[in-house]
Amino acid sequence: DRCGYPEVIFAEGKTPEWTAGVVERLRQAGQDCFATRVNDDQAAYLATRFPDGIQDRIGRTFWYPQSTEPRTLVGNVLVLTAGTGDLPVAHETLNTLTAMGVQSQRIVDVGVAGLHRLLRHLPTLQSADVVIVVAGMDGALPSVVGGLVDCPVIAVPTSVGYGTTFGGVAPLLTMLNACSAGVVTVNIDAGFKAGYTAALIARRVAKRNVSE
Amino acid sequence: DRCGYPEVIFAEGKTPEWTAGVVERLRQAGQDCFATRVNDDQAAYLATRFPDGIQDRIGRTFWYPQSTEPRTLVGNVLVLTAGTGDLPVAHETLNTLTAMGVQSQRIVDVGVAGLHRLLRHLPTLQSADVVIVVAGMDGALPSVVGGLVDCPVIAVPTSVGYGTTFGGVAPLLTMLNACSAGVVTVNIDAGFKAGYTAALIARRVAKRNVSE
Amino acid sequence: DRCGYPEVIFAEGKTPEWTAGVVERLRQAGQDCFATRVNDDQAAYLATRFPDGIQDRIGRTFWYPQSTEPRTLVGNVLVLTAGTGDLPVAHETLNTLTAMGVQSQRIVDVGVAGLHRLLRHLPTLQSADVVIVVAGMDGALPSVVGGLVDCPVIAVPTSVGYGTTFGGVAPLLTMLNACSAGVVTVNIDAGFKAGYTAALIARRVAKRNVSE
Amino acid sequence: DRCGYPEVIFAEGKTPEWTAGVVERLRQAGQDCFATRVNDDQAAYLATRFPDGIQDRIGRTFWYPQSTEPRTLVGNVLVLTAGTGDLPVAHETLNTLTAMGVQSQRIVDVGVAGLHRLLRHLPTLQSADVVIVVAGMDGALPSVVGGLVDCPVIAVPTSVGYGTTFGGVAPLLTMLNACSAGVVTVNIDAGFKAGYTAALIARRVAKRNVSE
Amino acid sequence: DRCGYPEVIFAEGKTPEWTAGVVERLRQAGQDCFATRVNDDQAAYLATRFPDGIQDRIGRTFWYPQSTEPRTLVGNVLVLTAGTGDLPVAHETLNTLTAMGVQSQRIVDVGVAGLHRLLRHLPTLQSADVVIVVAGMDGALPSVVGGLVDCPVIAVPTSVGYGTTFGGVAPLLTMLNACSAGVVTVNIDAGFKAGYTAALIARRVAKRNVSE
Amino acid sequence: DRCGYPEVIFAEGKTPEWTAGVVERLRQAGQDCFATRVNDDQAAYLATRFPDGIQDRIGRTFWYPQSTEPRTLVGNVLVLTAGTGDLPVAHETLNTLTAMGVQSQRIVDVGVAGLHRLLRHLPTLQSADVVIVVAGMDGALPSVVGGLVDCPVIAVPTSVGYGTTFGGVAPLLTMLNACSAGVVTVNIDAGFKAGYTAALIARRVAKRNVSE
Amino acid sequence: DRCGYPEVIFAEGKTPEWTAGVVERLRQAGQDCFATRVNDDQAAYLATRFPDGIQDRIGRTFWYPQSTEPRTLVGNVLVLTAGTGDLPVAHETLNTLTAMGVQSQRIVDVGVAGLHRLLRHLPTLQSADVVIVVAGMDGALPSVVGGLVDCPVIAVPTSVGYGTTFGGVAPLLTMLNACSAGVVTVNIDAGFKAGYTAALIARRVAKRNVSE
Amino acid sequence: DRCGYPEVIFAEGKTPEWTAGVVERLRQAGQDCFATRVNDDQAAYLATRFPDGIQDRIGRTFWYPQSTEPRTLVGNVLVLTAGTGDLPVAHETLNTLTAMGVQSQRIVDVGVAGLHRLLRHLPTLQSADVVIVVAGMDGALPSVVGGLVDCPVIAVPTSVGYGTTFGGVAPLLTMLNACSAGVVTVNIDAGFKAGYTAALIARRVAKRNVSE
Ligand SMILES: Nc1ncnc2c1ncn2[C@@H]1O[C@H](COP(=O)(O)O)[C@@H](O)[C@H]1O
Ligand SMILES: Nc1ncnc2c1ncn2[C@@H]1O[C@H](COP(=O)(O)O)[C@@H](O)[C@H]1O
Ligand SMILES: Nc1ncnc2c1ncn2[C@@H]1O[C@H](COP(=O)(O)O)[C@@H](O)[C@H]1O
Ligand SMILES: Nc1ncnc2c1ncn2[C@@H]1O[C@H](COP(=O)(O)O)[C@@H](O)[C@H]1O
Ligand SMILES: [Mg+2]
Ligand SMILES: [Mg+2]
Ligand SMILES: [Mg+2]
Ligand SMILES: [Mg+2]
Ligand SMILES: [Mg+2]
Ligand SMILES: [Mg+2]
Ligand SMILES: [Mg+2]
Ligand SMILES: [Mg+2]
Repeated sequence: DRCGYPEVIFAEGKTPEWTAGVVERLRQAGQDCFATRVNDDQAAYLATRFPDGIQDRIGRTFWYPQSTEPRTLVGNVLVLTAGTGDLPVAHETLNTLTAMGVQSQRIVDVGVAGLHRLLRHLPTLQSADVVIVVAGMDGALPSVVGGLVDCPVIAVPTSVGYGTTFGGVAPLLTMLNACSAGVVTVNIDAGFKAGYTAALIARRVAKRNVSE
Repeated sequence: DRCGYPEVIFAEGKTPEWTAGVVERLRQAGQDCFATRVNDDQAAYLATRFPDGIQDRIGRTFWYPQSTEPRTLVGNVLVLTAGTGDLPVAHETLNTLTAMGVQSQRIVDVGVAGLHRLLRHLPTLQSADVVIVVAGMDGALPSVVGGLVDCPVIAVPTSVGYGTTFGGVAPLLTMLNACSAGVVTVNIDAGFKAGYTAALIARRVAKRNVSE
Repeated sequence: DRCGYPEVIFAEGKTPEWTAGVVERLRQAGQDCFATRVNDDQAAYLATRFPDGIQDRIGRTFWYPQSTEPRTLVGNVLVLTAGTGDLPVAHETLNTLTAMGVQSQRIVDVGVAGLHRLLRHLPTLQSADVVIVVAGMDGALPSVVGGLVDCPVIAVPTSVGYGTTFGGVAPLLTMLNACSAGVVTVNIDAGFKAGYTAALIARRVAKRNVSE
Repeated sequence: DRCGYPEVIFAEGKTPEWTAGVVERLRQAGQDCFATRVNDDQAAYLATRFPDGIQDRIGRTFWYPQSTEPRTLVGNVLVLTAGTGDLPVAHETLNTLTAMGVQSQRIVDVGVAGLHRLLRHLPTLQSADVVIVVAGMDGALPSVVGGLVDCPVIAVPTSVGYGTTFGGVAPLLTMLNACSAGVVTVNIDAGFKAGYTAALIARRVAKRNVSE
Repeated sequence: DRCGYPEVIFAEGKTPEWTAGVVERLRQAGQDCFATRVNDDQAAYLATRFPDGIQDRIGRTFWYPQSTEPRTLVGNVLVLTAGTGDLPVAHETLNTLTAMGVQSQRIVDVGVAGLHRLLRHLPTLQSADVVIVVAGMDGALPSVVGGLVDCPVIAVPTSVGYGTTFGGVAPLLTMLNACSAGVVTVNIDAGFKAGYTAALIARRVAKRNVSE
Repeated sequence: DRCGYPEVIFAEGKTPEWTAGVVERLRQAGQDCFATRVNDDQAAYLATRFPDGIQDRIGRTFWYPQSTEPRTLVGNVLVLTAGTGDLPVAHETLNTLTAMGVQSQRIVDVGVAGLHRLLRHLPTLQSADVVIVVAGMDGALPSVVGGLVDCPVIAVPTSVGYGTTFGGVAPLLTMLNACSAGVVTVNIDAGFKAGYTAALIARRVAKRNVSE
Repeated sequence: DRCGYPEVIFAEGKTPEWTAGVVERLRQAGQDCFATRVNDDQAAYLATRFPDGIQDRIGRTFWYPQSTEPRTLVGNVLVLTAGTGDLPVAHETLNTLTAMGVQSQRIVDVGVAGLHRLLRHLPTLQSADVVIVVAGMDGALPSVVGGLVDCPVIAVPTSVGYGTTFGGVAPLLTMLNACSAGVVTVNIDAGFKAGYTAALIARRVAKRNVSE
Repeated sequence: DRCGYPEVIFAEGKTPEWTAGVVERLRQAGQDCFATRVNDDQAAYLATRFPDGIQDRIGRTFWYPQSTEPRTLVGNVLVLTAGTGDLPVAHETLNTLTAMGVQSQRIVDVGVAGLHRLLRHLPTLQSADVVIVVAGMDGALPSVVGGLVDCPVIAVPTSVGYGTTFGGVAPLLTMLNACSAGVVTVNIDAGFKAGYTAALIARRVAKRNVSE
C-alpha cells in the first residue's frame, strides 16, 4: 500500500455531513486526511466538527493529519503563477504538496508580459526538482519556463480569463502545444493533480537520495 | 480613392489562365498588381506570360508593379517568426508590405523556448513602427513581444503544429488572450492581412511625418 | 519606461478592499490609475474611498488621474457600435482612450441592417486615424466599414446575441474572416485592448506629427 | 403528387454506371430528371449515354427534361454572390431553379467590402420574389441585403475561405445571426436546397397570381 | 418604406424604463409596436404604463397596435411543435405573425416518436402557405413534415433538451441536414425570425392574389 | 470463454501481410476469423492466400469460418438504412451478425422524407428482436422507428452528408437526443459494434428460448 | 399497445400544477405513471396531492402504480457506478427498471482507479442480462466491464467532473470509442433511457423464457 | 548548459537537403543529433549522406550520436501501448529515451478490454521510475495503470481510431480527466515530449542516486 500518502476526499457535490462522515471514518482508521474543493458550507461545518483541522479558504482545502508533530518535508517543488487570479489553484497545489510530505515554495504574478519579473527568479527556478506553472488567459508562461530550466515542468491551465479563454481551454491548448519539450499538462484548474504528480517525482528523487 | 495601393488578387481557386487574365486587365488599366496564394501551376503560367513579374515561391506571391524604377519605401515594420516553419506566412507579409510601399525587415526563429535569441534583438524590436509576430504551435511569442515594445503588435497564427494545434486554432486563441494589451490578431495564416494593416499604420505615421 | 500611460487594474475577481489597495498604492507612487471590469460592489467601495475618481457604470471603469488639470488629448479615434446592446463594451474602449490621452468620438446603433444610418456618417468615418467597430450577433459591420475607410479598423466582437452567437464566437469568426483587408481583431468583449492598441497607433501618428 | 417537379439525384458517392442507371429508369418512367454533385467521371459517362442532357460543369449538375420544347418559366428569383469563388454553389442554385420551372438571374461578386457595387443593383434587388445570397468567408452579405429588400432572403454559406472559416462554419454562423429579420439559412454549400425552397415560394406566388 | 409592418423592439438587455421609452416614442410616431424577449420586470412595468397593450407571458411578447379596430389577417401559416416544452418559442412565432397581419394556427406536441398524432393532421398540413416547425432535442420533425407538404418549411431549433442537445445545437444541425429539400432554418429559439420570414412569404402570396 | 464467437481483426492500419499473418494464426488455432475495415490491397492479398474466405467489398469485411458446413443461425435482427449511401456500414453490420451466428435481414433507403416507404414495412419492423438503424445526414430515422416498435433500437450514425454533418457528428447528436426512449447509439460508422451488440441480445433471447 | 409499460412524464420545465394534472389524468385512465427529472417544488406538490406516490429524491423520480399489490419483477439488470457522484443518474435508471417491471441491483463506486473493488464483483457482473455502467470524468469503466462480461453493456455518461469533462462530453466520447465491442451509449445523464432500453431487453429475454 | 542531451530536429516540413544540412552542422559542432517525424524521402536521403545514422522507420526517427562506443543508460522507464496501432508513437518515445541516455522497455497491446494481459505485467509496472502509456480510441489505459503504480504516469493520446475519436481528441480528454491522481498528459501523438519529460525525471532520480 501507499504508506505516507494521505487519503484524499473530492468534496465537490457532497453535503457537509457526508464530507464530515468520510473525515470521521478516516480519522478512526488512523489515516491522514486531505480534502479538496471544499466549499464555504462544508468548511464551516468541518470547522465545528474538527476545530484542529487546517483550512485554507483560498485554496479551498482541508488538511487533517493524525499527528500534530512537525513533519520533515522532502524535495523542492516550485509553484509559479502568471497572475494573481491563479492563486486559488496554486494554493490547492501547494497544500497537496504539503499533505504529501513535500517541500514547496511559490512565486506569484510573474506572467510573460513582464519578463523581467520572471527572470529575477532564475536561480530559484533552476534549483527546483519540479516546476509547476499555473496560468490562465494565454497560458504562455510554461513555454517560457520550460526553456529556462532542466527539470520537468507541470503546466496547470486555469479558468481565469474571459471570451475566447473558454473557461480554460485556451491556456490548456497553449500548454499542450508548448514549444519547450519538457512540459506536461493536467486538466483545467487541476491544482491537486499537478501537486500530486510533482510529489510522486520529488519523493522518488528524495527517497533514492536518502536510501543511498 | 486609394492611390498608391496595388490591386490585390486572391489566386486560390482560380485557374492559371483566369489569374493571368486578371493580371492582364490590371496591367492595361495602369495599375500595380499583387497576387497572394499563388500555387505552382499559376506561378509557372504567370512566369511565361509576365517574365518580369516578381515571384516569391516561399511566400507564394506574385508582384507586378507598373514601373521598374526603384521606389522609396516609407516606415519601419518588423516581422518576427517563432519557428522556421512560419516562414511562408512571414514572406506573404513581407511581400505585401513591399507592394504597399513600406519598408520592412525580418527576424526568424526567435520562439520563446530560447528567450536569449529574442532578447538579443531588443533594440531592433523597440525601434519599429509596428511589430508583426508570426507563430504556430503555442503562439506564445506575441505575448512576450507585447511586453517588450511600445508600438502595436499584430499577431498572425499559423497552421504549423500537430494534434491539438487544430490547424492554427491553438495559437489563434493564445493570441486573442495575450496578456499584453497592445496585441491585435488576424485570421490563421493571414500574412497578407497583417501586412496590409501594418502598412496602413506605417504609411499614416510616415505621411503625417512627411507632410509636417 | 512608458511615460504618459496609466497603470491599469483588471478588477474582475478581486475584492473591493483589494482593488482599493492597489489604487492606493498607485496613488502614492504618483501614477495615474485606470481600472476595468469594475463590478457594483467595487464601484461603491471605490466611491467612498476615492470620491473624486471618475466612474462610468455603463463601461464599468474607474479612472483616477493624479492631476485634475484639463489634459490636451491627441489623435482622432472613432468608435462605432452595431447595436445599443454593444454600448458597455464601447464605453470601456472610449474610457481607455481617454485614460491613454487620446481624443475619441462614438457613433451608436449603425448596424448593417440599416445601411443608410451608417452611410450618413461617411465623412466622420473617413477622417479618423483608427476606427474601432464594436458588434455582436452577425458581426458584419467591420467588413462594411473596412471597405469605406483608408485607416486601420479594429474589430471588437461582443457577447450580445443568443443561440448560435455562442457568447461572441459568431461575430469573432465573422471579423477574423472579414473580406476587407485592413481589419484586425481582439478578444470577445475586449474593449480595453481595442482602445489600448488604437491609442498606441494614434499617439504614434500624433507624436511624429508634433515632433516635426 | 408533386406534378411539375423533376426527380432529383444526389450523385455524390455513386458510380457513373449506377448514376446513369437511375437516369435511365426515370427516363423510361417519363419523368424529368435533375442530378447534383456530378463529378467529372460521372459527367463524362452521362455525356456518352445521354448526349442531349444539359451539363453545367461549374455547378456540377445534369439536367435531362423529357421534352425539348421551350418551357415557360414563372416567378423571379435573384441569386447574388459575394465573391467569384462562390460561383459553383450559385450555379447549382440557378440550375435547380430552372429545373423547377422558375425564372432566375444572377449578380456576381458584390461582396460588402465594395458596397457601391451592390447598391448599383438596388432596383433589381427590390423587384425579386426571393433573393438567394451565396457567400463564404465572413458571410456578411445577407445581413446587408436583408436590410434593403422586402422579400424573403435565403442565405447559402459556402466553404470558400481559409483558417477560421472552418469549411463554411463562419459564414453559416453569421447568417444564422443576421441582424435582418427576414433571413433564413440552409446547410453549407447547399445551393440545391436554397434553389428548391425559393422555387416552392416563387411558384406559390405565381400560381395564385395566375389562378386569380 | 415597409408599410403595414410594426416596429420591433428586442427587449433583452434593456431596462423596463428604457423599453417603455421606446414604446412611447413609437406610439407618438403613430407606429404599431411589437416587442420580443420581454422579461417579467419589463412586462409588469409595461402593463402599468400601457394597460391596453397585449401581453403574452408564454411567448414573452408585447403587442401594441395603434388601432383597436379588428384587422383583416391574410394568408395561412401553420405552426407545429414537437413537444410541449417548445411552446414559448411557438408563441413568439404566432404573435409575430399576428403583428405582421398574417393568419396562423398551431398544432402542439406532434413529435415523431408518436407519428399517428402528426398524420392525423395531414389535411391541415397540406393546406398551409408555409409550415413553421418548432422542435428541440432530436429536431427530427421538420424532416418528416418536409416530406409530407408541398410548401416551404421553416425549421426553428429550440434549446429544449439536456446533455448533448448543447442548448439547441443538436436540433439545429438536424434541421440544416434535413433530408427533405424544402426546409430552411433560423437561429436557435428564433421564433421571431421564423414568423417574420413566413409573414413575408404569406403576404407576398396574398398580395399578388388580392391585387389580381 | 466466449464459445461460438469468432475472433475479430480490425484491419485498418495493418499491412496485407500482417493481416494475413493474423488470419493464419487464428486458422491454426482452430478459430473462426472475421476482419473488418479491409481495404482493397488487403482484400486482394487475402484472396490469394485464403481463396475460400468470404469477402464483401461493399461492407469491406472478410469472413473465414473453420467449417464450411451450413450453420443454423438464431434470432431475428432487422437492419434499416435511411439512404443508399449508408449501405457500406449496413453491410458491415449484416456480416458481423452472420459471423456471430445470428439471422438478419435488411431494408434499404427508407428515410423519413418518404414516410410511406417505411410504413409499408411495419409488420417486419414489429417482429424483430432488435432493429439496427443506419443513417447519415439528419439521422432522424431511429427516432421514428423507436416510436413504431417494442424492441431495442441500436442507432448507427454514418459519415454520409456534407457541410454541417461534420463527418457524422450531426446524425450522432440526433440519435443521442432521439425522443423515443428505447434508442441506444454507437460510434460514427461503427457498423461492427451495432451488429456485435445486437447479436449479444439476439443470442441471449434465443438461448433462453431454446434451453427452456 | 405497449401493455405493462407505465406512461412516462418528463417533468423538466413543467409547473407543479401542470405535472400533477398529467398524473391525475393518467390515474383516471387507469395507467401506471412514472415521472423523471422531478425538482423539489414538483416533488413537494406531488406529495400533497398523491401521498402514496413513491418518491426518490436522489434519483428525482416519482412512481405511482395503480395497484399497491406487490408485483413480480422479471429479468436481472446490474447497474454500476464509477463514483459516488454518479448516484443520482444511477437511481433514475434503477427506478425506471422497477417501473418497467424489471429486477435490478446496484454496485457503487467501483471506478477503474481501484480495480480490485470492481474485480471483487466478477460473478455478479457475469450473471446479469444487461450491465448498465454510469460514469463521469474519464468514463473508462464501460471499456473495462465490456471486457469482463458476455452480455450487452449500456454506458451512461454523467456530467460529473470539471474543466475538460465539458459537462459530460469527455466520458461520452470515451464510451462511444470503447475498445470493447458490446458497448452502446445514451445521452449524457440519460439514466432513464438506459433503464428503459435495458428493460426492453430483459423483458424480451424473460418473456420468451416464460412463454416456452 | 544541458550536457548529455542531444540536439533535436523536428523534421516535419523541411526538405531532405535542409534536414541533412542541420545534421551536418551539428556533427561538425561535435553534438549528438536526434531527429523526429522523419518522412520516407528524408530518411532515404539521410541514409545516403549518413549511412551509420540509426534509423527507425516505425518510429520515424533518426539517431546520430558522435561516439559509436556503447553508452551506459540510466534509469528505468516503461512504455505501454493499448493497441498495436499505437506502436509508431511508442517507438518515437522509446528512441527519445535512448537518445537521452535513459533505459527503457516496452509492453505492447495491453488495452483495458483484456485486463488479464495487463495484470500479468504487474511487477514490471511497479518497478518503473515512470510509466508512459500510449493509447488511442477510448484512452482508458492510463486511468487503470495510474491505480496500479506508485510512480508518475505520462499519458500520450494517439490519433488511432475513427469517428468520434476526432483525431485523438477523445483519448486526450479521457487522459486529462483520468480518475487516478498521478497522471499527466502531452499533446496528441507527442511521443517525443513524453519521452523527453520522462528522461528528465529518470535522470534526476538516477543522478542523485549516483552522486550519493
Ligand atoms: N481536486 C481534485 N481533482 C481531481 N481529482 C481529485 C481531486 N480531489 C480528490 N480527487 C480524487 O478523488 C478521489 C476521491 O473521490 P471521492 O471518493 O469521491 O471522495 C481521490 O482518490 C482523488 O484521487
Ligand atoms: N491572402 C489573402 N487573404 C485574405 N484576403 C485576401 C488575400 N489576398 C487577397 N485578398 C483579398 O481578396 C480581394 C481580391 O479577391 P478576388 O477578387 O477574388 O481576387 C482583395 O481585394 C483582397 O482584399
Ligand atoms: N427575438 C428576436 N430575435 C432576433 N432579432 C430580433 C428579435 N426581436 C427583435 N429583433 C430585431 O431587433 C431589431 C430591434 O433591435 P433594438 O433596436 O435593439 O430594439 C428589430 O428591428 C428586429 O429586427
Ligand atoms: N429523463 C428523460 N430523458 C429523456 N426522455 C424522457 C425522460 N423522461 C421522460 N422522457 C420521455 O419524454 C416523454 C414524455 O414527455 P412529455 O410529454 O413532455 O412529458 C416520454 O414518453 C418519455 O419517452
Ligand atoms: Mg499581474
Ligand atoms: Mg526553432
Ligand atoms: Mg438597433
Ligand atoms: Mg472580389
Ligand atoms: Mg410529448
Ligand atoms: Mg433515398
Ligand atoms: Mg471514489
Ligand atoms: Mg489489441
